[in-house]
Amino acid sequence: MDVLAVLNLSDIAVYFSKLTMFPLFDLAYYIVSILYLKYEPGAVDVSRRNPIASWLCAMLYCFASYIMADVLLGESPLHYFNNTSHVLLASAVWYLIFYCPLNLFYKCVTFMPVKLALTAMKEVVRVRKISVGVIHAHHAYHHGWIIMALVGWAKGAGVALISNFEQLIRGVWKPETNEFLNMSFPTKASLLGAVIFTLQQARWLPISKNNVVFLFTIFMIVTKVFMTATHSHWSPFAPIEAFICPIVFRNTCVTSDDHDRVYSRDNTHSCSPCNLSPYTAKTKEELNEGTRKKKCKKTE
Amino acid sequence: MDVLAVLNLSDIAVYFSKLTMFPLFDLAYYIVSILYLKYEPGAVDVSRRNPIASWLCAMLYCFASYIMADVLLGESPLHYFNNTSHVLLASAVWYLIFYCPLNLFYKCVTFMPVKLALTAMKEVVRVRKISVGVIHAHHAYHHGWIIMALVGWAKGAGVALISNFEQLIRGVWKPETNEFLNMSFPTKASLLGAVIFTLQQARWLPISKNNVVFLFTIFMIVTKVFMTATHSHWSPFAPIEAFICPIVFRNTCVTSDDHDRVYSRDNTHSCSPCNLSPYTAKTKEELNEGTRKKKCKKTE
Amino acid sequence: MDVLAVLNLSDIAVYFSKLTMFPLFDLAYYIVSILYLKYEPGAVDVSRRNPIASWLCAMLYCFASYIMADVLLGESPLHYFNNTSHVLLASAVWYLIFYCPLNLFYKCVTFMPVKLALTAMKEVVRVRKISVGVIHAHHAYHHGWIIMALVGWAKGAGVALISNFEQLIRGVWKPETNEFLNMSFPTKASLLGAVIFTLQQARWLPISKNNVVFLFTIFMIVTKVFMTATHSHWSPFAPIEAFICPIVFRNTCVTSDDHDRVYSRDNTHSCSPCNLSPYTAKTKEELNEGTRKKKCKKTE
Repeated sequence: MDVLAVLNLSDIAVYFSKLTMFPLFDLAYYIVSILYLKYEPGAVDVSRRNPIASWLCAMLYCFASYIMADVLLGESPLHYFNNTSHVLLASAVWYLIFYCPLNLFYKCVTFMPVKLALTAMKEVVRVRKISVGVIHAHHAYHHGWIIMALVGWAKGAGVALISNFEQLIRGVWKPETNEFLNMSFPTKASLLGAVIFTLQQARWLPISKNNVVFLFTIFMIVTKVFMTATHSHWSPFAPIEAFICPIVFRNTCVTSDDHDRVYSRDNTHSCSPCNLSPYTAKTKEELNEGTRKKKCKKTE
Repeated sequence: MDVLAVLNLSDIAVYFSKLTMFPLFDLAYYIVSILYLKYEPGAVDVSRRNPIASWLCAMLYCFASYIMADVLLGESPLHYFNNTSHVLLASAVWYLIFYCPLNLFYKCVTFMPVKLALTAMKEVVRVRKISVGVIHAHHAYHHGWIIMALVGWAKGAGVALISNFEQLIRGVWKPETNEFLNMSFPTKASLLGAVIFTLQQARWLPISKNNVVFLFTIFMIVTKVFMTATHSHWSPFAPIEAFICPIVFRNTCVTSDDHDRVYSRDNTHSCSPCNLSPYTAKTKEELNEGTRKKKCKKTE
Repeated sequence: MDVLAVLNLSDIAVYFSKLTMFPLFDLAYYIVSILYLKYEPGAVDVSRRNPIASWLCAMLYCFASYIMADVLLGESPLHYFNNTSHVLLASAVWYLIFYCPLNLFYKCVTFMPVKLALTAMKEVVRVRKISVGVIHAHHAYHHGWIIMALVGWAKGAGVALISNFEQLIRGVWKPETNEFLNMSFPTKASLLGAVIFTLQQARWLPISKNNVVFLFTIFMIVTKVFMTATHSHWSPFAPIEAFICPIVFRNTCVTSDDHDRVYSRDNTHSCSPCNLSPYTAKTKEELNEGTRKKKCKKTE
């Protein structure tokens, strides 16, 4: 911890851990989350025709992490909805993003510098959620290390893990893929974060909670802001996966070209994109940045 | 409340609130619910080949509202099944409707005057359930207004909200639509009722609980009996929706003809029927009254 | 109980009831369960490309019965994952079955005498789980006989009841069938066992708990070992069903030939295989024994 001491990082980490998330950071989280909902094909259409279905999806995008963590720990899935002000704030964001006259709000928040700031703030909330999820599970199961990691993962990955069912509300059903078969960077990073925080909680890592949360937040912000700014598909996990997976899991990764070929030849065969390939197809959030954005504008 | 006082409605409302639901009103609820199951295409076939799947669906039709409310409040989904006599009564109704020799029971309960009486009684139970659901949620979350409305809604709308999964038990899968995308009158009315009862619970409405429950029950009975008697598709909410929705949600409702055209042209596009249109396609329960009834008789 | 007394079965039953399941019997349960996962078409492919999805499916195959029972009783679905050693043991079995060099572990455990022994041990665990499930539900709901039977059933049938959702993780979606529409022998037997144990718990059967568990275990071992050894599709319930069902449920069972014909003609019609027919199509587990085994070897 000497390096951290020299850099005075510990003090910053303590200060950072006292930062309150509501309303500013949570607002950023809601805005970026509901933006991703708007990028989904057909979402604008659903918002016009079925506001209630659209609102339900928006709530899942904002609060699925709480819902899932509560379900996994045997509590009420609606527990977080007791925070009426949070739900009203998220509902206001949903309304502004989908129905604001002249699409003004959408144009403001997708202006690149604003969006990068919001993305950075969202990652702060995400890492905080993972950390809180692990501690929440630790309170319920003192030695349930696997439970802690799974709850932390659910808190970080949020709606992605139940995207099949979120899509179902909008009348979309894509059973041939899901987040487990084609993990996006945030989902993988959340899993990594949940495992690290669980190890820290178990006192198997010689680092304080504040420091590990702070460092992981920095990592997430840098990576996500870089990916958002460059519309990049590069994943920092790709080289590690490319090295480890063929040895440990005997997997013979196909490139995304190979995959497309295989998939188009026989799409009933449960051949799913390799989530371990460095050449993996664009992830959901990455796709949102590019192609779907255009579609969305077209629909407006 | 002066008008109510003059009409002596308060006394009637108090008397009405003391009415016990079991067994008479619950029996009517089970009969009408399982009738709607029998109207579903393929349901009779499933009952012949897979009695257990059919029984499970019947239990969902009768008790989904309790199951959902318990799940939403973090309790055991089977909690209500502790009332063995209720489950046995519902099972007896299921058996009589599907397997009674000469289809006698079915013929009796679908005789129009009987059916109208049963429908009226079902609405009494439905409104009581919404009211109890809101109070149940209020006990768990004193200021969780959104939770109260959602639990009340789930109690009123019942199996409709999870119809995709109920159908799945019978081997039917229609992901392109669901109750959120194409809300039937009872689902909309349940949402309205849940919101009204929540406002009353929050003391934002200057009316007593007994009175509001009584008046809403009258509204539901009149509307549903009228709809059942005339096989009508008219919804009392249509004019209000047609006025409010274009302003608030910028929606450009399509008529059902337009919708059919759009839908047949491209059914992979998540274009769902407008739940706000006054010309909306027949709802599930309304369809049951007409077309499906014939199919059912044919199958018999 | 005189016959049992003469045969000294009561003592054996008491001794048997004291047998601990962990780690030996549980190990056998995990091995046989994950073998069935490997027999599923596409499962080996998923294990190569998406180890996390494969691991999740393996955990469902091993622990779905606990997850479902906990969900049905309103507890945390991850409750059982508090037993870290059990989860690690199951994970080790998953790794060895899917990734062991030269497929050595798989070849060992599918060697017929070994497999028969493991199958017998799995049935011991299954019956014990049903019994514990009924008692668990009895503690929560003293007179909830239906809840006891349902929880016991979920504990015995395990992943089969939620196979649609387990397949979904692997990107496979077969909505036209499920375990309720096409019940396999273990699912039917689990239901029977759960009902018997519930009747015993309610003191409606003049037999002690140890004896009834012991006798039912013997029945399950003999039947399943016979079915596994002979790759047989014969079900001991078939004659009883063929006698009772036409009378009670007015069902006109089709033979599997008829069914195939009907099904191929129109697979959108929710015509599902008769789960009551003595000539019913091969069940999932039985299919695994034969056809899928070959496929699996081919994929290796």
